[in-house]
Amino acid sequence: MHSIYFPEKVSTLKIVIIGGVAGGASAATRARRLSEECEIILLERGQEPSFANCGMPYYIGGEIKSRYSLLVAPIETLRQRYRLDVRNRSEATKIDRVKKLVTVRNLATSEEYNESYDKLIIATGASPFRPPTPGIDSPRILELRDLSDADRMHALATSNAKHAVVIGAGFIGMEVAENLVRRGIKVTMLQILNQILSTWDQEMITTVERHIREQGVDVRLNESAERFEEIEAGTRLAIYLKSGEKIEADFAVISVGVRPESKLAIEADIVCGPRGGIVTNASMQTNDPDIYAVGDAVQVTDVVTKRTTQIPLAGPANRQGRIAADHIFSRDSTYRGTQGTAIVGVFGMTAAMTGQSEKLLRREAISYEKIYIHPMDHASYYPGAQPMTLKLLFDPSSGKVLGAQAVGTNGVDKRIDVLAMAIQASMTVFDLEEVELCYAPQYGSAKDPVNMAGFVASGVVRGDHPIIHCDSIHADSDSRYFLMDVRTEAEFASGHIPNAINIELDELRERLGDLPKDRIIATYCKVGQRGYMALRILVQNGFKVVNLSGGYASWCHRFPNAS
Amino acid sequence: MHSIYFPEKVSTLKIVIIGGVAGGASAATRARRLSEECEIILLERGQEPSFANCGMPYYIGGEIKSRYSLLVAPIETLRQRYRLDVRNRSEATKIDRVKKLVTVRNLATSEEYNESYDKLIIATGASPFRPPTPGIDSPRILELRDLSDADRMHALATSNAKHAVVIGAGFIGMEVAENLVRRGIKVTMLQILNQILSTWDQEMITTVERHIREQGVDVRLNESAERFEEIEAGTRLAIYLKSGEKIEADFAVISVGVRPESKLAIEADIVCGPRGGIVTNASMQTNDPDIYAVGDAVQVTDVVTKRTTQIPLAGPANRQGRIAADHIFSRDSTYRGTQGTAIVGVFGMTAAMTGQSEKLLRREAISYEKIYIHPMDHASYYPGAQPMTLKLLFDPSSGKVLGAQAVGTNGVDKRIDVLAMAIQASMTVFDLEEVELCYAPQYGSAKDPVNMAGFVASGVVRGDHPIIHCDSIHADSDSRYFLMDVRTEAEFASGHIPNAINIELDELRERLGDLPKDRIIATYCKVGQRGYMALRILVQNGFKVVNLSGGYASWCHRFPNAS
Repeated sequence: MHSIYFPEKVSTLKIVIIGGVAGGASAATRARRLSEECEIILLERGQEPSFANCGMPYYIGGEIKSRYSLLVAPIETLRQRYRLDVRNRSEATKIDRVKKLVTVRNLATSEEYNESYDKLIIATGASPFRPPTPGIDSPRILELRDLSDADRMHALATSNAKHAVVIGAGFIGMEVAENLVRRGIKVTMLQILNQILSTWDQEMITTVERHIREQGVDVRLNESAERFEEIEAGTRLAIYLKSGEKIEADFAVISVGVRPESKLAIEADIVCGPRGGIVTNASMQTNDPDIYAVGDAVQVTDVVTKRTTQIPLAGPANRQGRIAADHIFSRDSTYRGTQGTAIVGVFGMTAAMTGQSEKLLRREAISYEKIYIHPMDHASYYPGAQPMTLKLLFDPSSGKVLGAQAVGTNGVDKRIDVLAMAIQASMTVFDLEEVELCYAPQYGSAKDPVNMAGFVASGVVRGDHPIIHCDSIHADSDSRYFLMDVRTEAEFASGHIPNAINIELDELRERLGDLPKDRIIATYCKVGQRGYMALRILVQNGFKVVNLSGGYASWCHRFPNAS
Repeated sequence: MHSIYFPEKVSTLKIVIIGGVAGGASAATRARRLSEECEIILLERGQEPSFANCGMPYYIGGEIKSRYSLLVAPIETLRQRYRLDVRNRSEATKIDRVKKLVTVRNLATSEEYNESYDKLIIATGASPFRPPTPGIDSPRILELRDLSDADRMHALATSNAKHAVVIGAGFIGMEVAENLVRRGIKVTMLQILNQILSTWDQEMITTVERHIREQGVDVRLNESAERFEEIEAGTRLAIYLKSGEKIEADFAVISVGVRPESKLAIEADIVCGPRGGIVTNASMQTNDPDIYAVGDAVQVTDVVTKRTTQIPLAGPANRQGRIAADHIFSRDSTYRGTQGTAIVGVFGMTAAMTGQSEKLLRREAISYEKIYIHPMDHASYYPGAQPMTLKLLFDPSSGKVLGAQAVGTNGVDKRIDVLAMAIQASMTVFDLEEVELCYAPQYGSAKDPVNMAGFVASGVVRGDHPIIHCDSIHADSDSRYFLMDVRTEAEFASGHIPNAINIELDELRERLGDLPKDRIIATYCKVGQRGYMALRILVQNGFKVVNLSGGYASWCHRFPNAS
């Protein structure tokens, strides 16, 4: 038994929290656990202060049957168990920092009143961005932020709607599209960029794009809505596209990103960052030490780059809420920053990532190298093994892990969680070689995909395994590389990179005389392993060699429409 | 593209490797990747130098259909691609360290010859222990080490055998039992200890025990075979038990642990540890710098305790093989020790662990505290969520993670892999509070089980959350504790800990007057969360309180036959 704790008496405080859900509700319940005596007022603009917003798409699609199950903590529980003064349909409209007052509007009665605070926590979240497109205000154009949005979308999804347009191909767009398809609704998806799920690097997500197309989603890249028009007496919608096409649909869902809801803070002269997020210190205090901010409304520090950014995620919001409450009660817990661990499931496929993407590293001008592997989720000799693609980004000299992305069917979440730990602990690719993970054939491999990524990346950093990527081969117009496919004749015949010659690995030692010493030989195989063995043979025979990281599989991901 | 590497010329060496599979085969292929010029002789006593021994039970049960798929690298590949001089059915019988010779017996011809070496790698593995029970030599008593064992067991499992006795309830015993049941064979399991899967702590494994009983396995704890006797002209077996009972079966499988196969090393005066494992340095060198040892035959250092031990695992064997080859070619990779990450699946349930168990910590007299949680594998509002039980062991003052065990249906491997990373990186329970893992409702929770374990354990270390465990309550004959169940009346009525009184959490504040100030109140709920809230309320009202870690669920795991 652990030693028994006799607490000091805590002072009586009045804490006002603006906004519920992850950050606000976590702060409120944590504060109550730390102090029975303080007064805690939780102001919530909507009906419910604590609901599972990440579950809403699945309620709309019917996977989650009961709306009630989305309520994480019903109001009555918050009031009774945590003695929270929950005021729903109550909007904070003004903060008076000098008098320490919040102006609250009761949305039911439109009455306004002032509420004093000793400590204020702003947990206003982020609101979906609605671009100023003509016609955008139609009630047939939905967004998905709170339960009332979910109710409206649920009603439409279970009506006789036949066709919906989803604008934006991010997390919510994907999940809504899947769930509308589940309801038998045809979905057209407009994405202004040249890839879906733009948090990921493009080549990682081409298989997901193909997969959702195969499920019937009509994906339009580089496309956007220029005008909306209600038709058929407001029961349907015409969407005029940038490309000139017109689509008619029963309704549209807009999910093109979110913006921190920091208007209230800005008007109270609380410092915000360039992207609108409220600036806090590691204890989640704003420039006013009596005012904290948590959740999607705040600017965070990226764990990898140490630079500020906006990353809306539920887990960080929960932890920030907890930390703010801790700090109010003089505890020293601090927020370490956000590393952007994210996952999305769509029609049975999973994409997950943690840390920096390649595009962000490039934008931030941070030096990196990358490798690709295409391992099975578990031992290939055990039934049901499914391939995944794993990309690892790391510092080219120290080997420090900077980011990871994975896409596949099974075991993707596990590997990204493991790599999230590696980033959290500032581990290197050399550490990944050594980590000891669960192995039985149903669950993994004796050399887990994470170990494999470590082996390959360490070989690159050590200089044993010079690699090249698809883009360099694709751009090699002056034939700098002698491109050599070391797979079998049959594999080669079923598809290969243009201009490659085929020398099977097991015949390579006999055919060294056929190879040029004055060019760089670029080897490749199916996923990179035989190419690496070929490279080792050639390097030791005095050839200049590079191996295509991830082999032909990487090529097919990068150039899905070539082959 | 990474800088191109021009290797130095490596010297020609003759490397002899005794034993294939994980350690030996990894050493051989790694050596070839590092040097095209060295001579590599791989001596393998059996038929196949590289096969998936972890897959054998599933081949026996028919889950893996093809025997061929168990061959990781067929001999021809090893010979052709890696230019290995593979000599199967070849047993090393003697090492002459002075002359640097290995005596090899060709098992096909019984001829013996000497083979010289520059560097020798011993990868002889570990052999199943066969206790000296009378009758043990019957061919009806099988073990499962190599493919010929698997072939024999496969033949029996697909014969008209009706009943088998599995002796030993460790990893292999479990997997064999499951797969014999899959073949329709009735299985009686004898386990000399008072629990199955003795690598885990007992209370963690009671649900697995119940589960395999429900699948029809007749589990006999504290039981062993005292004598075997062939009956019915050697076609069946009578097993006389310690308890006096006699069981008749078609065959028996013995899997009561393994012993390092270090006889060859000992006879050559290579230093071995107290448990028979060959002693090496971190580069896998023995006391003879030209002789390396890798895999199950070697003694390893425990990552957590830094003490020496024997842990037979495939992943570590692979890495050790790689490290030995690296060191032969003057590379500085070193083995960091083994942390005992292990997993077993049985009839759809999974048990996994990493680091130290409680019983080992106690045996080693290492100070620890533990917590239990019983979270869902993913958000409970999303369909299909399944409970798991997670036990975390940590240093009571620093919070350093010492070990973790989990049992459940889904997501168990993921959490133990994440916690294996925490141990690998010397993280604390405070780190676990902060780690950022994948969250979407199908995959996890915004507060992942790993975060939850961190929250609870951190509360314990900080003194906010004094806990108690089942054994202390069970042993409380002098009523030191006032035992209070804070669940609902209905939950209480459906089963509770003896002598508990029921005060529902949501009524607790109104009933403080009913509670004693002179005794320690021990709160509990279903899994520990409401008990913790009750504790926080009571502590702040001046009561002395402890919370039962993991609540009534932990009680039911600890005392499965009480209630």
